[in-house]
Amino acid sequence: MPFRRGGRQIERICDALCSPAPYQTMMHESPGDTPMPSLETMGEIMSRLRAALFPGFFGNTRVSRHSLQFHMAANLDSIFTLLSEQIRRGVCFTCAETKSMRAHCGSEAEEKAAAFLKALPGIRDMLAGDVNAAYAGDPAAKTPGETIFCYPSVTAVTNHRIAHALHTLGVPLIPRIISETAHSATGIDIHPGASIGERFFIDHGTGVVIGETCIIGSGCRLYQGVTLGSVSFDKDEDGVLIKGLPRHPILEDDVTVYAGATVLGRVTLGKGSVIGGNVWLTRSVPPGSFIKNSFMD
Amino acid sequence: MPFRRGGRQIERICDALCSPAPYQTMMHESPGDTPMPSLETMGEIMSRLRAALFPGFFGNTRVSRHSLQFHMAANLDSIFTLLSEQIRRGVCFTCAETKSMRAHCGSEAEEKAAAFLKALPGIRDMLAGDVNAAYAGDPAAKTPGETIFCYPSVTAVTNHRIAHALHTLGVPLIPRIISETAHSATGIDIHPGASIGERFFIDHGTGVVIGETCIIGSGCRLYQGVTLGSVSFDKDEDGVLIKGLPRHPILEDDVTVYAGATVLGRVTLGKGSVIGGNVWLTRSVPPGSFIKNSFMD
Amino acid sequence: MPFRRGGRQIERICDALCSPAPYQTMMHESPGDTPMPSLETMGEIMSRLRAALFPGFFGNTRVSRHSLQFHMAANLDSIFTLLSEQIRRGVCFTCAETKSMRAHCGSEAEEKAAAFLKALPGIRDMLAGDVNAAYAGDPAAKTPGETIFCYPSVTAVTNHRIAHALHTLGVPLIPRIISETAHSATGIDIHPGASIGERFFIDHGTGVVIGETCIIGSGCRLYQGVTLGSVSFDKDEDGVLIKGLPRHPILEDDVTVYAGATVLGRVTLGKGSVIGGNVWLTRSVPPGSFIKNSFMD
Amino acid sequence: MPFRRGGRQIERICDALCSPAPYQTMMHESPGDTPMPSLETMGEIMSRLRAALFPGFFGNTRVSRHSLQFHMAANLDSIFTLLSEQIRRGVCFTCAETKSMRAHCGSEAEEKAAAFLKALPGIRDMLAGDVNAAYAGDPAAKTPGETIFCYPSVTAVTNHRIAHALHTLGVPLIPRIISETAHSATGIDIHPGASIGERFFIDHGTGVVIGETCIIGSGCRLYQGVTLGSVSFDKDEDGVLIKGLPRHPILEDDVTVYAGATVLGRVTLGKGSVIGGNVWLTRSVPPGSFIKNSFMD
Amino acid sequence: MPFRRGGRQIERICDALCSPAPYQTMMHESPGDTPMPSLETMGEIMSRLRAALFPGFFGNTRVSRHSLQFHMAANLDSIFTLLSEQIRRGVCFTCAETKSMRAHCGSEAEEKAAAFLKALPGIRDMLAGDVNAAYAGDPAAKTPGETIFCYPSVTAVTNHRIAHALHTLGVPLIPRIISETAHSATGIDIHPGASIGERFFIDHGTGVVIGETCIIGSGCRLYQGVTLGSVSFDKDEDGVLIKGLPRHPILEDDVTVYAGATVLGRVTLGKGSVIGGNVWLTRSVPPGSFIKNSFMD
Amino acid sequence: MPFRRGGRQIERICDALCSPAPYQTMMHESPGDTPMPSLETMGEIMSRLRAALFPGFFGNTRVSRHSLQFHMAANLDSIFTLLSEQIRRGVCFTCAETKSMRAHCGSEAEEKAAAFLKALPGIRDMLAGDVNAAYAGDPAAKTPGETIFCYPSVTAVTNHRIAHALHTLGVPLIPRIISETAHSATGIDIHPGASIGERFFIDHGTGVVIGETCIIGSGCRLYQGVTLGSVSFDKDEDGVLIKGLPRHPILEDDVTVYAGATVLGRVTLGKGSVIGGNVWLTRSVPPGSFIKNSFMD
Repeated sequence: MPFRRGGRQIERICDALCSPAPYQTMMHESPGDTPMPSLETMGEIMSRLRAALFPGFFGNTRVSRHSLQFHMAANLDSIFTLLSEQIRRGVCFTCAETKSMRAHCGSEAEEKAAAFLKALPGIRDMLAGDVNAAYAGDPAAKTPGETIFCYPSVTAVTNHRIAHALHTLGVPLIPRIISETAHSATGIDIHPGASIGERFFIDHGTGVVIGETCIIGSGCRLYQGVTLGSVSFDKDEDGVLIKGLPRHPILEDDVTVYAGATVLGRVTLGKGSVIGGNVWLTRSVPPGSFIKNSFMD
Repeated sequence: MPFRRGGRQIERICDALCSPAPYQTMMHESPGDTPMPSLETMGEIMSRLRAALFPGFFGNTRVSRHSLQFHMAANLDSIFTLLSEQIRRGVCFTCAETKSMRAHCGSEAEEKAAAFLKALPGIRDMLAGDVNAAYAGDPAAKTPGETIFCYPSVTAVTNHRIAHALHTLGVPLIPRIISETAHSATGIDIHPGASIGERFFIDHGTGVVIGETCIIGSGCRLYQGVTLGSVSFDKDEDGVLIKGLPRHPILEDDVTVYAGATVLGRVTLGKGSVIGGNVWLTRSVPPGSFIKNSFMD
Repeated sequence: MPFRRGGRQIERICDALCSPAPYQTMMHESPGDTPMPSLETMGEIMSRLRAALFPGFFGNTRVSRHSLQFHMAANLDSIFTLLSEQIRRGVCFTCAETKSMRAHCGSEAEEKAAAFLKALPGIRDMLAGDVNAAYAGDPAAKTPGETIFCYPSVTAVTNHRIAHALHTLGVPLIPRIISETAHSATGIDIHPGASIGERFFIDHGTGVVIGETCIIGSGCRLYQGVTLGSVSFDKDEDGVLIKGLPRHPILEDDVTVYAGATVLGRVTLGKGSVIGGNVWLTRSVPPGSFIKNSFMD
Repeated sequence: MPFRRGGRQIERICDALCSPAPYQTMMHESPGDTPMPSLETMGEIMSRLRAALFPGFFGNTRVSRHSLQFHMAANLDSIFTLLSEQIRRGVCFTCAETKSMRAHCGSEAEEKAAAFLKALPGIRDMLAGDVNAAYAGDPAAKTPGETIFCYPSVTAVTNHRIAHALHTLGVPLIPRIISETAHSATGIDIHPGASIGERFFIDHGTGVVIGETCIIGSGCRLYQGVTLGSVSFDKDEDGVLIKGLPRHPILEDDVTVYAGATVLGRVTLGKGSVIGGNVWLTRSVPPGSFIKNSFMD
Repeated sequence: MPFRRGGRQIERICDALCSPAPYQTMMHESPGDTPMPSLETMGEIMSRLRAALFPGFFGNTRVSRHSLQFHMAANLDSIFTLLSEQIRRGVCFTCAETKSMRAHCGSEAEEKAAAFLKALPGIRDMLAGDVNAAYAGDPAAKTPGETIFCYPSVTAVTNHRIAHALHTLGVPLIPRIISETAHSATGIDIHPGASIGERFFIDHGTGVVIGETCIIGSGCRLYQGVTLGSVSFDKDEDGVLIKGLPRHPILEDDVTVYAGATVLGRVTLGKGSVIGGNVWLTRSVPPGSFIKNSFMD
Repeated sequence: MPFRRGGRQIERICDALCSPAPYQTMMHESPGDTPMPSLETMGEIMSRLRAALFPGFFGNTRVSRHSLQFHMAANLDSIFTLLSEQIRRGVCFTCAETKSMRAHCGSEAEEKAAAFLKALPGIRDMLAGDVNAAYAGDPAAKTPGETIFCYPSVTAVTNHRIAHALHTLGVPLIPRIISETAHSATGIDIHPGASIGERFFIDHGTGVVIGETCIIGSGCRLYQGVTLGSVSFDKDEDGVLIKGLPRHPILEDDVTVYAGATVLGRVTLGKGSVIGGNVWLTRSVPPGSFIKNSFMD
């Protein structure tokens, strides 16, 4: 076959793929040979965190109350080592991409990993409330433990609370990897920047989008297909998007948003409001509102 | 770095994570050291079931018509052994969570696994109809086999028919694991309790939600983003949700629901009805109805 | 337990499962013992293609600019070998299913694999534009590289451009496997037949459906939950679906479709049009249109 | 570092390694792209054979007497498929190396695999005698089952009886792979050509060598470090070794050879003879001999 | 091919293999469906023990002095769980093989595993002496750590000290699995029953055999190919081997045995004796002896 | 069970294992958190080297003469990266153990890895001679390729030539790992320091020991159980072994040593000598000698 004979064609394709692409480079070269964060190791870290947050539900060991402390301590130390290295890679990646070299990325990474671990008990307590909300809020749930083991909401919110803590510490890239992992597994897309209060529950969840600057109070509940998004993006005088401006909704405590509803822009949904299914909303509503579409029966 | 020095900080975090959480325990201790069901083994069981239901399409062996019976028998025996153990774990989990101890969970588990295997030929025949519906209903499908191998609908409905059979036998937890696996892979969320008739097809599928007490006739078809849900949840005098009440739609035979439509509550969609895309419906409609939104062209 | 005793019951179930199913056979026997395409190998091929298209971002090796050419050439040769075999299996599968035997499927497969590799540099250049569009279009994106590594849009569009090239070459089954892999991971369902222009971006993406005969211009942008579908399916005089007719929308250049919008049928959205969230559209609109629902504020 | 800069040095080394070596080619190109036999698949085949020969001792399944037949039949069919392919590769390898092309190597391979399977029950019965000999002959053995599960002798003799059956069928290369696997694991090196009678036992075993043309009667026993070898090799008029001539010892029934003894050449050790440890023997001895070194106490 | 047609031949072979073999059953059925000990889990246990005994040399974690205690405790708890289960399987296996049923094999197994763990610090101290002896005794050893990481002697003696402790506790089968693992990896065959004193070193090691009832003092050293075996086996009046009698050599402290020497029977080699290479010895020698062959120069 | 209750006993065992051992530390702490060399990565490096030296025989790809150069170059670059890192770890290990810190161990490691790669073509040419010697010297060998794929001699000599090249470059620890891997697989123990000429062959091989300072000419051949060792070890005035002195035999060209022979000390075996089986030799012999034991027939 002419394709294989002498390999000339592969060489030509190879040359084309090794030459620069339009727009920007498609190749990544980190400084100091630091590779990209490892998706496989990130998976191991998330498994270890789940084992630390929900012992007996996840992780390989049949922990008893007596041996729990041994495994917890070893697990936390391993998480510290693995996470420090991944944070370091995330920092190096961002340095290389933004050409803004930082020194000491190794020690910076260890400091952030340590600060994250200190936040873990608080995350655990928040998740206990989320689990309770999932159990209390779904008539099909038989036990709280079932929601820990099976519910996409608990998966997605666990990933979010971890990603948000790292995002708050200024860790680049890693939080996004964590949130996209949950997005892929559950169809729930929560930006690591979103701030979410206690006892949060998303039923079914596929198609939910929660934007970067959302602020969600305690006791809120969402259903599948809900978007908490932005209307339009501000650009600077050069026509380049201004990044990071507050542009997503604020939900006060105990707000419920039913399936397929879309809430856009920096609007505030007052305490205890209920937004009906498929509602399209781009304005604030006072506490206690019940918003539904005109075409609803 | 002070974090590592002496490990005192890890010990403090460890103590906090080993102490009780608010709301309820976040740790699972099964009676008699029985661990949680294994997600990895559940994956193997589902692969083996797929190989038994669609031989030659799935499974490792190049089966011929002559050797099929050998592999089928060995596979069924392995499924029996593996599934019995996972059902036993599911029973123990529920015992531990609900404090309602059952004796003989080992033999109970084997009985349920055996009863499930007896239901398998019927499930296979139902799936043959589903495959036919997928092929007949999608102009992009080239062959029936392509829908078996590639279509999310066949994946999700296979998992559902298996989960529903186990749910009907009173197996706890395991059916939910099976349905959430399909939910994660396809974005189609069918509660194991839902009753679904012959020749069922879901096109594209992402975002479909089918609730616990739905009853769907034969020859029905759904598109992506359809919700068959409930309106509100009844609570008892203590304000606690009453679980298990009929609260989701009934679809009679040959009903089609187009993309994004939402049908809520114990309503009946009469035989042969067509519900248009994005329709919001909370009332019953007679046979032969064609419902579309006022804003549709 | 009677179930195990003598294995008689397993034999009965086995016989039932080995006997023919209603509607059609549920067993696949390829000619010449060629098994089904391997999903595991398809996963390896996609990983290798990602490493070839985005070196340094994906793949196991810490490539430098100097050693890139070595790894690229070896990778391309391995892709050729692996892909040829999978294409051959896809051809055999379709032969067996459609009873339309083709000779020389081995050399046909190698020719198509070679033709695909020749198209790879063009695909790479298209993807460079897509990456740029993702970065420019999302205020939350910090660097272009972040979109390569994390964004579902880049994942789905990469798979699509590969699947579309194979589809155009007349390769059966394999393109569908590739597109369903992306569908499962991202919730974005793009049929391999869809034709998509330069600098394409899908934000969030869950629930997006793009049909087989869509034609999308350059610079278009979609949000989550957008459907570009068909209205109804033509059947021939025997009531059988006519497959392959143009039946999905045409988007001219620079069209934006917001979250949850549904566009159905062979309609044309004129250059630069903006379709609002949740809009339901089954007619063509002229260039520069801004379509929104009457119920929007 | 100059080594990496431009990769010129790697290219030079690469060119040298791709150019011909002295003496003969060091690269293998099989006809028709058939690769070398797979050591990994050979390992799977041997595991499956062990499970077929010693059910319940080896293999993944908890077989009961009732389900044994199911797993046995499936296992045999898989062995047939896997082994046929490996035999075919072995035939192709030998064709390529000896430039003596054979047609129909696919069907030849299947015939040999089928003939081998027919020999399997006989092999099983021989091994039952070997297990009995191991148990009866070692005061440290607690049960026959322990020798099946743990004893290097049973491992090595199992591999030998399989390799010898394939060797007798004229299968190239594969028998050698099987015997070298046992050699590596146990230190016992038995050439596949050696003919070994019933109830054979090797105690400890490390360092034992049994040559290609050995003939060993029933009830023989060897200890570690025993060599049954050849004295010198006949060459033809061109000085090239003549291959395959009888040149190794014949052991009649019930011969025992103690540790470290060396027996060389086509000599016969008569029925019931005992050869002492470290003895060096290059002549035949009559039945009932007891040979020991002069320096032994 | 007739072999496959209808699978009749496979069925015949299958029937033959499922029928009883001569001498004894070749199939293992444990009581209560307990399977054989898992060689894979035994491998994990040995890896964990090596990590506990030589932290930082073996095991996955980069332990520091500060985090060592965390990982040690978790590791010990996991070893306890895993080893208890394997001991239980070993007990069940022996029960089934010897028809001498024991009750409470679960709690018996846990007691033995606990007793073994208590012996672990003593084993560690013995191994520290063995490592020192290896370093001091081999002119090619650069550091003590090199002998821990690379030397077959340390591997074999570690396995032996573990196997011997379990053997002393009356654990069946498991010690033999552990010693045969080392035998396969190093060619050093030490029976778990052998009693070996402090600071033991075997140089090179291939072919060494140390019998069940050997007693070896402190500071002894062996070279490759040394046999410490038995002369003949006593049988009872029925001609059946009497198992467990003292029948192997006693080495007093500081004895050295050079390569290839053979010492057989319940003889005593006096303190400080040196046995030359290839010596054949079946009698006791007084302290301080230097034994060499007459044919040595 | 008291063992588990409160975990107090595990804590006590843990404390004992974390406290210092007699003789020396049993824990390894490398400077700068560099872990031990990875045995798994060393295995990958050796597989890659085998694929580079014997393309088509080893390695995953079906290389053709046309694509060989692509895979060779990529493989060499990967070997360079992987081996540099392992050499660095070996250097750090030795630094930590000997307390003799070296700076720049990263660049030193890369230099040594580059120098090793430059030596690879020469190693390949030597191995071509070894393969030829194996084929020419064994009447049971059917083709040269069979010896590459199956013969322990080629495995052990390949590992040795690689280990020796690294040893000559002053790389610590890594050569020993490579030689012990071959020792475990083949029973052939060649110290990396030994110098071995062209066309070297070891038949059967189990139990062969070749010491650190051996010098072996071209065309030599050994059989199983041969020891080329040292007589006694010189100690310095403190009674500590002097390491590295010449103390093993020199074999001139074309020397053959038969099975079980032992040659000890810095003696010279003259060109073309033949040493008989089981011979014990501690003196030099002139060229052309034929040495056999007096007790041989």
